Amino acid sequence: MFSQKTLLLFGAIYSLLFTITLASDPDPIQDFCIPNPKFGSIRTPHGLLTILPCKNSSEATAEDFVFSGMKAAGNFSDTGLAVISASPTNFPGLNTLGMSFARADIEAGGINPPHFHPRATELVHVVQGRVYAGFVDSGNRVFARILEQGEVMVFPRGLVHFLMNVGDKPATLFGSFNSQNPGIQKIPSALFGSGIDEELLQKAFGLSSKQIGTMRKKFDPKKLR
Amino acid sequence: MFSQKTLLLFGAIYSLLFTITLASDPDPIQDFCIPNPKFGSIRTPHGLLTILPCKNSSEATAEDFVFSGMKAAGNFSDTGLAVISASPTNFPGLNTLGMSFARADIEAGGINPPHFHPRATELVHVVQGRVYAGFVDSGNRVFARILEQGEVMVFPRGLVHFLMNVGDKPATLFGSFNSQNPGIQKIPSALFGSGIDEELLQKAFGLSSKQIGTMRKKFDPKKLR
Amino acid sequence: MFSQKTLLLFGAIYSLLFTITLASDPDPIQDFCIPNPKFGSIRTPHGLLTILPCKNSSEATAEDFVFSGMKAAGNFSDTGLAVISASPTNFPGLNTLGMSFARADIEAGGINPPHFHPRATELVHVVQGRVYAGFVDSGNRVFARILEQGEVMVFPRGLVHFLMNVGDKPATLFGSFNSQNPGIQKIPSALFGSGIDEELLQKAFGLSSKQIGTMRKKFDPKKLR
Amino acid sequence: MFSQKTLLLFGAIYSLLFTITLASDPDPIQDFCIPNPKFGSIRTPHGLLTILPCKNSSEATAEDFVFSGMKAAGNFSDTGLAVISASPTNFPGLNTLGMSFARADIEAGGINPPHFHPRATELVHVVQGRVYAGFVDSGNRVFARILEQGEVMVFPRGLVHFLMNVGDKPATLFGSFNSQNPGIQKIPSALFGSGIDEELLQKAFGLSSKQIGTMRKKFDPKKLR
Amino acid sequence: MFSQKTLLLFGAIYSLLFTITLASDPDPIQDFCIPNPKFGSIRTPHGLLTILPCKNSSEATAEDFVFSGMKAAGNFSDTGLAVISASPTNFPGLNTLGMSFARADIEAGGINPPHFHPRATELVHVVQGRVYAGFVDSGNRVFARILEQGEVMVFPRGLVHFLMNVGDKPATLFGSFNSQNPGIQKIPSALFGSGIDEELLQKAFGLSSKQIGTMRKKFDPKKLR
Amino acid sequence: MFSQKTLLLFGAIYSLLFTITLASDPDPIQDFCIPNPKFGSIRTPHGLLTILPCKNSSEATAEDFVFSGMKAAGNFSDTGLAVISASPTNFPGLNTLGMSFARADIEAGGINPPHFHPRATELVHVVQGRVYAGFVDSGNRVFARILEQGEVMVFPRGLVHFLMNVGDKPATLFGSFNSQNPGIQKIPSALFGSGIDEELLQKAFGLSSKQIGTMRKKFDPKKLR
Repeated sequence: MFSQKTLLLFGAIYSLLFTITLASDPDPIQDFCIPNPKFGSIRTPHGLLTILPCKNSSEATAEDFVFSGMKAAGNFSDTGLAVISASPTNFPGLNTLGMSFARADIEAGGINPPHFHPRATELVHVVQGRVYAGFVDSGNRVFARILEQGEVMVFPRGLVHFLMNVGDKPATLFGSFNSQNPGIQKIPSALFGSGIDEELLQKAFGLSSKQIGTMRKKFDPKKLR
Repeated sequence: MFSQKTLLLFGAIYSLLFTITLASDPDPIQDFCIPNPKFGSIRTPHGLLTILPCKNSSEATAEDFVFSGMKAAGNFSDTGLAVISASPTNFPGLNTLGMSFARADIEAGGINPPHFHPRATELVHVVQGRVYAGFVDSGNRVFARILEQGEVMVFPRGLVHFLMNVGDKPATLFGSFNSQNPGIQKIPSALFGSGIDEELLQKAFGLSSKQIGTMRKKFDPKKLR
Repeated sequence: MFSQKTLLLFGAIYSLLFTITLASDPDPIQDFCIPNPKFGSIRTPHGLLTILPCKNSSEATAEDFVFSGMKAAGNFSDTGLAVISASPTNFPGLNTLGMSFARADIEAGGINPPHFHPRATELVHVVQGRVYAGFVDSGNRVFARILEQGEVMVFPRGLVHFLMNVGDKPATLFGSFNSQNPGIQKIPSALFGSGIDEELLQKAFGLSSKQIGTMRKKFDPKKLR
Repeated sequence: MFSQKTLLLFGAIYSLLFTITLASDPDPIQDFCIPNPKFGSIRTPHGLLTILPCKNSSEATAEDFVFSGMKAAGNFSDTGLAVISASPTNFPGLNTLGMSFARADIEAGGINPPHFHPRATELVHVVQGRVYAGFVDSGNRVFARILEQGEVMVFPRGLVHFLMNVGDKPATLFGSFNSQNPGIQKIPSALFGSGIDEELLQKAFGLSSKQIGTMRKKFDPKKLR
Repeated sequence: MFSQKTLLLFGAIYSLLFTITLASDPDPIQDFCIPNPKFGSIRTPHGLLTILPCKNSSEATAEDFVFSGMKAAGNFSDTGLAVISASPTNFPGLNTLGMSFARADIEAGGINPPHFHPRATELVHVVQGRVYAGFVDSGNRVFARILEQGEVMVFPRGLVHFLMNVGDKPATLFGSFNSQNPGIQKIPSALFGSGIDEELLQKAFGLSSKQIGTMRKKFDPKKLR
Repeated sequence: MFSQKTLLLFGAIYSLLFTITLASDPDPIQDFCIPNPKFGSIRTPHGLLTILPCKNSSEATAEDFVFSGMKAAGNFSDTGLAVISASPTNFPGLNTLGMSFARADIEAGGINPPHFHPRATELVHVVQGRVYAGFVDSGNRVFARILEQGEVMVFPRGLVHFLMNVGDKPATLFGSFNSQNPGIQKIPSALFGSGIDEELLQKAFGLSSKQIGTMRKKFDPKKLR
């Protein structure tokens, strides 16, 4: 129906549009808003999400409100962690509704390193296994203990938290968040894999240039990806 | 240390205070706020929750941020439903953090009748079983399908939703909410167990006086509790 | 100025754009935002509203901020109810300002059936007539009484409420809402006119298959529209 | 039951408590919150409202949610204006629900002087009469016209607006606000009745010392109250 | 690459798009959102700002988050005031983050006339000089005093405030706001330079037709710009 | 007037009350709220702030809205940093208004170590000196450069940021925040001075037990305070 040139233009406009983002996670002003699939994927670099123009609501289906991709564990990292995240990019019905969800599997002895979510509180539910879990408050006090199967822990918004599988079999946890895009800063790689000035890091941690170098190699983003 | 009269006064003040409520589920302005146990339980009639004066943060412990009461199913209702809710009353760490959590078990053939939460979106995660689940939008359109084990569904804030166990064994689900007090209106009992004028109900549903009478008997709150 | 093909493309882009919706009813970040009329009507199926690109503010006029369509009653339904709603679709100045407005006329003996607004508190002002009005709280308690001319009642956000003209002449009421799109779920049609699984409805209300069938016929959306 | 000393103490505590205020007009976290009448009136100087500890919800009645004090006009001011405001102080059910309401009657030729509400958008509904109404935007542009009976106008949050009865009989208007305490700054008295440094006012308006003096006399708060 | 007609169309679409505005200053749902420069300037008449489609986050640079245009005073007005504002139009990194910034220089004896910001609280920091500063509350009470170098004052959201340099050398102040677009209403020009009906102004201020005429000439927008 | 016992009781009640905290930094519902000095200091362990019952507004004075404690630098830490914070505890007028302020002085070669504020965006204004400043986003990308005198930088809410004085004289900066209690997590002490399980830290950073031990000694809170 459209000429190639027109489609090209369409593409150009689309490329501008698909980074329209909203500034908030507040009260919805419609029942729901399923992102229009014509705009393609909205996975952006670094996990930044965008809110897209909605499909006409009459085109929404029950499938848009169901996520089926968490029946098994994801791929494990070096630290023995496998995370699958459900966000509006793969679970369209979440768009504008102020929540997201994740599955984390941790191998025996594996960890989820200290990290925090700038925009959400997290509820973590241990469906299987035994994990040491905790967070640090603004006064550098740790609130941590071992969670048994069936227990639930809350990590307040924006505070550093961490997990370690202290059982002898894999652990499976499910986390829910009160933002459709909680964001994440993993402390080790945010500090040593990001390119912060070396002198500043030495002074901040009291580490030698050589020690910083070792850390930087370990968390080099080129190596990690 | 205090005389009886003083304690009585204390109690009187407490009775006023313990219904201090806040008007919002917004951004916290402190890391967390553990309700002060000196004020006793904050379970109020009809499930209305209140936010209490916080403990001094130095008295908070890891236990305040963990909930252990969902390892087994709760008590089943007539419709084959057992719900355990984690809210600031029994999971103090949730206070002011904008989330709550629930476990629902449904017997084979059992239902969670049509209801809605005035103040939260819900993410429901099927940990075991097979359930027909869905919601209705503002245009009276149903978004429903059967959820298998491991699937997650989202019910947008304030919309009527429902569940029925269509498998042949019990189902176990976990729901998370983006409010510390989502509220609930169960449609059948809100309409027929609450005392709305009979003539209005007849006209609204096209039911006879006799039919309304039968419904009212069924959902009589005295009988239910 | 543009060829047909170009206009067609324009139309296609428009069709995508006109469902751009925002996720919130929060603080405005500009004085106002009059939707651009070039994008045509923004009435969407089922009353879902969208926020459109704004006109340049220099093109806004006083007319954008005035609504004149409520001087007389609207068309009456089967239950003796006539509603006229003012929202950004017909009252452009409301866009982004967090409020909307409605006129309801009820014939003698007529009702506004039990319903709720997922996203707003409502203030109802009886300008003429005598109406039984009330709402149900989370504890299934009814707060209802007869309102005389000049009285105002508040229905808290997300709670089921209802009205019945108990006078002998028509009643006229005006409702204001603290959302530009409060949304609505009319209980009878949401339950019996939406296609929820029949078995679930039978179990929820204790009604027979035949009774459900009668209700479904009564609230069949094809018949109603 | 309590000794006088105890009651005195009670009073002292009450006097501290009754100015507990909340910082927000956001989403409620309970169905409603009726201020506890034991704490007495919460009318504070200058119309600043406070949110009080709630009554136990089981003590709330339908009367708490209805306001009957607007059936007739209030007392007229010098400028021919009579305002009755419904806020949580006299309409307890409004507390925490994010809305308030007012009736304004204006005599023929009377005015509601330029003023604004720092915390709310206003919808004004002309129930009787003919009024010139308008507001000014951030670019000093006036949006004004004559409103006829039955028309509705919106004044965006925080913008200066004004009304003048240009008909030959009294006008009656009803205003609704999306805050339980919109606040108000009446420009003439805020500037000339408040005690701002005279030199600054001269320079700001290009008025002589004598002219400022005349204005100050006119808006002297001692004279006005 | 595109024909002229296509570019024209592109321009037309752009002209519609570039006034897409958001309705809120709430929690961000991404780390940041740098407006896409392809859309050109977003300075709109009257200082109304808009939120634009974001650049792909990988194209953001450190420069987007730094503002360098406040090293010297701006141009002085008739009242001896020079203001430079940093908002998303000239400081792209501010977009969606809920803050903005301004530098104000005031000549000896100069003033910043009574004005208010409808959408933000302001913190003003006196870096040099000596200024009389204050605001008026809803009860027409003035909170004012002379600020010395190094002092900070807060002007609550939406309340009228003012400044006068009472020292003998220029004063330099920096203001920060908790909105990316606080808005502004300068009282003298909003009232007398905007075209509000003269009769209403006479009645509101008790000024004669001649006096109003003088004021209107003084604040005539054609003369001012 | 009161017996000792009564005062004791009073004290006990006060001790409960003075940790009443609010859950939000949202729109105020009154002009301002000066904390009641009868409740004493609200400095709590770890800098957690609380919102107190307000003074009667008629008791507020201009002094409540002015902060004079930032005219000179504070005490310098080991890393050459001196911070003075203005929050509702020492600048009562800030209470409920959603902003706070800080002065930071950094010695030549000194640093403000990597840290973040869980609840606020920060605008930092370099009044004197030359500093390397930057932040890390969710994708581990650094946005950093040297700021000259007079420049302003924005650190988005919840993202890790840092400063180092790269000039040869002391630097003075002023930071403003869009929360009355931004909170802070200083990464080095949050990780190594808080008591997180050693094995987890070893695995997270790839450090040896000995290295962790050295860090722990360096950031031992007993040593630091």
